[in-house]
Amino acid sequence: MQNSLVGIGVIGYGYWGPNLVRNFANSECSRVVSVSDLSPAKLATSKRLHPEIETTTDFRDILQDHRVDAVAIATPVHTHYELALAALRAGKHVFVEKPLAPTSDQVRRLIEEADKRNLVLMVDHTFLYTPAVQKIRELVHEGAIGEIYYYDSIRSSLGLFQSDVNVIWDLAVHDMSIIQYILNEEPVAVSATGSCHVSGAPENMAHITLFFQSSCVAHVSVNWLSPIKVRQTFIGGSRKMIVYDDVEPTEKIKIYDKGITLDGSLEKAHQLRIGYRAGDMWAPHLAAKEALQTEVKHFVDCLRTGETPISSAQSGLKVVEILEAASRSIKEQGRPVRLGQSHKIPERA
Amino acid sequence: MQNSLVGIGVIGYGYWGPNLVRNFANSECSRVVSVSDLSPAKLATSKRLHPEIETTTDFRDILQDHRVDAVAIATPVHTHYELALAALRAGKHVFVEKPLAPTSDQVRRLIEEADKRNLVLMVDHTFLYTPAVQKIRELVHEGAIGEIYYYDSIRSSLGLFQSDVNVIWDLAVHDMSIIQYILNEEPVAVSATGSCHVSGAPENMAHITLFFQSSCVAHVSVNWLSPIKVRQTFIGGSRKMIVYDDVEPTEKIKIYDKGITLDGSLEKAHQLRIGYRAGDMWAPHLAAKEALQTEVKHFVDCLRTGETPISSAQSGLKVVEILEAASRSIKEQGRPVRLGQSHKIPERA
Amino acid sequence: MQNSLVGIGVIGYGYWGPNLVRNFANSECSRVVSVSDLSPAKLATSKRLHPEIETTTDFRDILQDHRVDAVAIATPVHTHYELALAALRAGKHVFVEKPLAPTSDQVRRLIEEADKRNLVLMVDHTFLYTPAVQKIRELVHEGAIGEIYYYDSIRSSLGLFQSDVNVIWDLAVHDMSIIQYILNEEPVAVSATGSCHVSGAPENMAHITLFFQSSCVAHVSVNWLSPIKVRQTFIGGSRKMIVYDDVEPTEKIKIYDKGITLDGSLEKAHQLRIGYRAGDMWAPHLAAKEALQTEVKHFVDCLRTGETPISSAQSGLKVVEILEAASRSIKEQGRPVRLGQSHKIPERA
Amino acid sequence: MQNSLVGIGVIGYGYWGPNLVRNFANSECSRVVSVSDLSPAKLATSKRLHPEIETTTDFRDILQDHRVDAVAIATPVHTHYELALAALRAGKHVFVEKPLAPTSDQVRRLIEEADKRNLVLMVDHTFLYTPAVQKIRELVHEGAIGEIYYYDSIRSSLGLFQSDVNVIWDLAVHDMSIIQYILNEEPVAVSATGSCHVSGAPENMAHITLFFQSSCVAHVSVNWLSPIKVRQTFIGGSRKMIVYDDVEPTEKIKIYDKGITLDGSLEKAHQLRIGYRAGDMWAPHLAAKEALQTEVKHFVDCLRTGETPISSAQSGLKVVEILEAASRSIKEQGRPVRLGQSHKIPERA
Repeated sequence: MQNSLVGIGVIGYGYWGPNLVRNFANSECSRVVSVSDLSPAKLATSKRLHPEIETTTDFRDILQDHRVDAVAIATPVHTHYELALAALRAGKHVFVEKPLAPTSDQVRRLIEEADKRNLVLMVDHTFLYTPAVQKIRELVHEGAIGEIYYYDSIRSSLGLFQSDVNVIWDLAVHDMSIIQYILNEEPVAVSATGSCHVSGAPENMAHITLFFQSSCVAHVSVNWLSPIKVRQTFIGGSRKMIVYDDVEPTEKIKIYDKGITLDGSLEKAHQLRIGYRAGDMWAPHLAAKEALQTEVKHFVDCLRTGETPISSAQSGLKVVEILEAASRSIKEQGRPVRLGQSHKIPERA
Repeated sequence: MQNSLVGIGVIGYGYWGPNLVRNFANSECSRVVSVSDLSPAKLATSKRLHPEIETTTDFRDILQDHRVDAVAIATPVHTHYELALAALRAGKHVFVEKPLAPTSDQVRRLIEEADKRNLVLMVDHTFLYTPAVQKIRELVHEGAIGEIYYYDSIRSSLGLFQSDVNVIWDLAVHDMSIIQYILNEEPVAVSATGSCHVSGAPENMAHITLFFQSSCVAHVSVNWLSPIKVRQTFIGGSRKMIVYDDVEPTEKIKIYDKGITLDGSLEKAHQLRIGYRAGDMWAPHLAAKEALQTEVKHFVDCLRTGETPISSAQSGLKVVEILEAASRSIKEQGRPVRLGQSHKIPERA
Repeated sequence: MQNSLVGIGVIGYGYWGPNLVRNFANSECSRVVSVSDLSPAKLATSKRLHPEIETTTDFRDILQDHRVDAVAIATPVHTHYELALAALRAGKHVFVEKPLAPTSDQVRRLIEEADKRNLVLMVDHTFLYTPAVQKIRELVHEGAIGEIYYYDSIRSSLGLFQSDVNVIWDLAVHDMSIIQYILNEEPVAVSATGSCHVSGAPENMAHITLFFQSSCVAHVSVNWLSPIKVRQTFIGGSRKMIVYDDVEPTEKIKIYDKGITLDGSLEKAHQLRIGYRAGDMWAPHLAAKEALQTEVKHFVDCLRTGETPISSAQSGLKVVEILEAASRSIKEQGRPVRLGQSHKIPERA
Repeated sequence: MQNSLVGIGVIGYGYWGPNLVRNFANSECSRVVSVSDLSPAKLATSKRLHPEIETTTDFRDILQDHRVDAVAIATPVHTHYELALAALRAGKHVFVEKPLAPTSDQVRRLIEEADKRNLVLMVDHTFLYTPAVQKIRELVHEGAIGEIYYYDSIRSSLGLFQSDVNVIWDLAVHDMSIIQYILNEEPVAVSATGSCHVSGAPENMAHITLFFQSSCVAHVSVNWLSPIKVRQTFIGGSRKMIVYDDVEPTEKIKIYDKGITLDGSLEKAHQLRIGYRAGDMWAPHLAAKEALQTEVKHFVDCLRTGETPISSAQSGLKVVEILEAASRSIKEQGRPVRLGQSHKIPERA
């Protein structure tokens, strides 16, 4: 019975690693064989909470361990590429904390390596596995919201400053993965501005606009220096509008039957007849599941079935491409940057 | 005694006009002589609520009325210039609904005319007269907030679409006036994006970033197609941070003793020592005064004393210049647009 | 045309009187002839806001005025009986601010007088005319909520202390009228506790429980010494539950598809199988109408059609009877007090 | 080193037991030796999360284990007395989930037994160890709030129905312990009402008023059938007022500088001069500590030092006495029930 469990090795036991360990350990289809971290103090914590899991300061111990089928990486972003590549070369399936790697070139090389070896390479875009985002996708895809006018999101809190990436790689990355997951369209250009208030540190505040072929627009505000935590997304459509507030303990999603109705065409120069539709609000019940639990199970399922993960390396690549373009735009105070050829995202089967 | 009251004529009795009439009428230092509007139905409403105030469909009746000392204009934006100019030429002091005029050139010509005739020309930036904004200015100016890192604002609701101006001239105009009022610095460039979801109508959604010489940045999100009303401003400083939520019935301003503390300088490549200071929150008591009441009184005071209004035509000019630049940037998907020479705003006496 | 308007006289121009004057004046089917108050300063305010309405310090001027068809009374509670009686005897229809009178005996005598003279006697239970309460009544009456388990309400704020009545006559009176309006059942007993924190003043805080023949229970908390304004009512039913928050600017009513489901009967001693049903939440759109506008129109309609008002004197009598019983219970620290014979309230036609 | 850790046995691994195990296990001064539960399935869960902790279906194994210094009991209320008594007789210190026992007689006998054997008997009133309640106590005791006028609390949610106790023993018990902890005075009488909406189940909704010798009053509303979770406590004082909302993720405590000011004495019959003081609001920063972690450490400290616990058995006795009296009052629809002789609670050293 123990044999049939997928063996997991976790590299990195800092902020996010303990969550990965806990969820892979609690899952019924996986077990955590070993954890590595450079800090013995962190490994001691792991030992206290999970006495049955081995620890090591050398990640190569994990890569060489034949009981390990898959490796989960939760280390600083600048190490993702090397560690993921080494793990793939060691024949392990790989699960990497977001973002997949700091450059799209590196991501492409990782994808190549994984494809060549027929290994699963999945990026940890946890939000896609929340009941809230899954509900929003369902509503958008079944047409309940109508044509999507905009996605407008604020994601801010006090900290955590990371020294090797700026705030868009830490926070906007979530919105980029959600946008890709719920919309049927890919952005064609990006304009972004950002600023830095701690000398020598990366940008701690940024605002990104994504342009689409259609009139749809996406905007994302991220901030590491906000006095309060805000996680608020507005999605406007021709039929309904959604307010998604992830800080709300319940009623995270509210769907408003509000919008505009146009009375015929434009009339005289200054007389556009616009009416407002103000109807009911509805907050669907959401299951109280931990997203990471759903996600690690999905990873293990993909290992077994060969299914392409929702947060596939390909989708992770798009996210990194957008963040790269946004970073370029930030350097030029908002000058728009084109993105690769726009095309419809194929529906997942 | 009646003689000493300043006589007011109000041109335009649509959305905002009734508020002007009510406040000038209730003020102890002014009386409303006459109201004009093109619509007899609207004038009938005025007559029912204020039987003692004369009405006319021809604004020239007001300009020719010697009992009228000052004219308040609350008509569509594209008529502001002509009406204000005519009123100044008729020797009346002028109070104009925001924005002062659709172009900065027009504003400059109005200022010239007013200066030449020694008349007061004031723009109705109502928010500057709210107890909330006055408190924020006081806190910023006395140094309680420290160095200002950012001003980040969201101003959205469902409607009202205007056919002759886009959403930034209707909503962002408020933030531009507030930014100018509370900061000691003028923006040097602007990057803005906007989009339109109603064919043939002006932009209904926009995002504006203002750059300053210092590391301060301002960002304003405005939206006419939001399912809920949002009026939220975050002001981050080196000492304290403010959350100003104008939708809150009480506790509109919350001041957080939160921030970051830097431990020495940058250390190793990936080890910036940033700590967080998480202290108390404080919500100062604000008087429950209607801002427009304070503002009309200020206008009348300026008439009598010759004092320069807080929302002077000069400050209104800056606002229009920024909105013009933002409009240009929107047309080019966020390309940054320089603003006129940056200089310290002189303190008001 | 003017002749067909119902002529109104308003007695009392303190806190509530100005609202009555404004609403009767703005209504298309009534006009305010005259206002009386003992204070010349208050009458001056009326004169300023409504130059066309006559004023007098002697309410008898109103009673003798043949242009006055109906009298609205907004004076301290202890004067209601005498003024209403005098108005009825002068042949006027009468609209009295809540509560109708300080004792049920007085209310009964007023009802007698009105019935004898075939005049309308209506009590101003404004909340019954709010879109929120009307929606709740509709939901309860159509069975959407199921069997009503409880009505639990909190109504508190800072002030206003009244010297001639305690807090239950000022605040709980609203809940008593709402309970009567939305439930099909009358309470059979009441237990109440109250306390006074200002020496010499009436009770400023009270808690009332109403018992019904069924398992339904109603509880009302009222407080004049609360730091924040709370207006929250929970209505629990077998099918759905309502949260009614009158302080919310929008979404005043939220309907939760939540409840309990019982798995068969009681099993073993300590094993009651109770499950929870946690479904969607729904906030119906409510019209943005001022309740008092609806109510004064209803009063005038009743005058013309002879229809019994929703807030009839009979319903006002029930409210006073309950408050009397609650006052007795307060004096005895919660000892339950029986109410008159319980019977089904007949449905309004 | 391991020897110096206090050995803990936990009896009951249902709803609360896992929290006790986790906290005693994570504490640096204790270790969990063994867990017992009647359900092998629950023990399997314990084994999975804590492989190093022994499990047994027979609690007597724990009582006979000499490595066990203290026993924590988290079983249904009706078993508390027998289990605690057996544990004390086995020479173990005892930590019991609230309430200590279903009757005050039983609590008294447990206290006797503990005193005779010089063992610590502590009740798990977790709320006393929250940063919020500790801050409130500090504010009250240092006089910042002034004379306490009232404590008014609402504690409701959907579930969890317990079959062996009614809602006041499950929820009001928290408020009773808090009231005792923060006030300097003991209640002298109680009036309570309650109702049951599930046939055969205990009361699921109740309202309790506590009377004090002074004008202070306490009121507690508890409900197992509320669509939303409410944890709101209002504390009114002569100098300041507190709103404590435990559902708030941050800013759980808000202190309002609001109140009343009296202008001299009572004047004429109907003219009490009451003014309102409306000042700032202040939300002190609270540490983000898990209360149960603080509490289990306090328990172990008391074992070692002989100090009387904050939530001593004596204080637990007072709570049970009040709940017993409230239960009697509920049976008689609010009839007030006297409590034992009132006396000042001695300050904790």
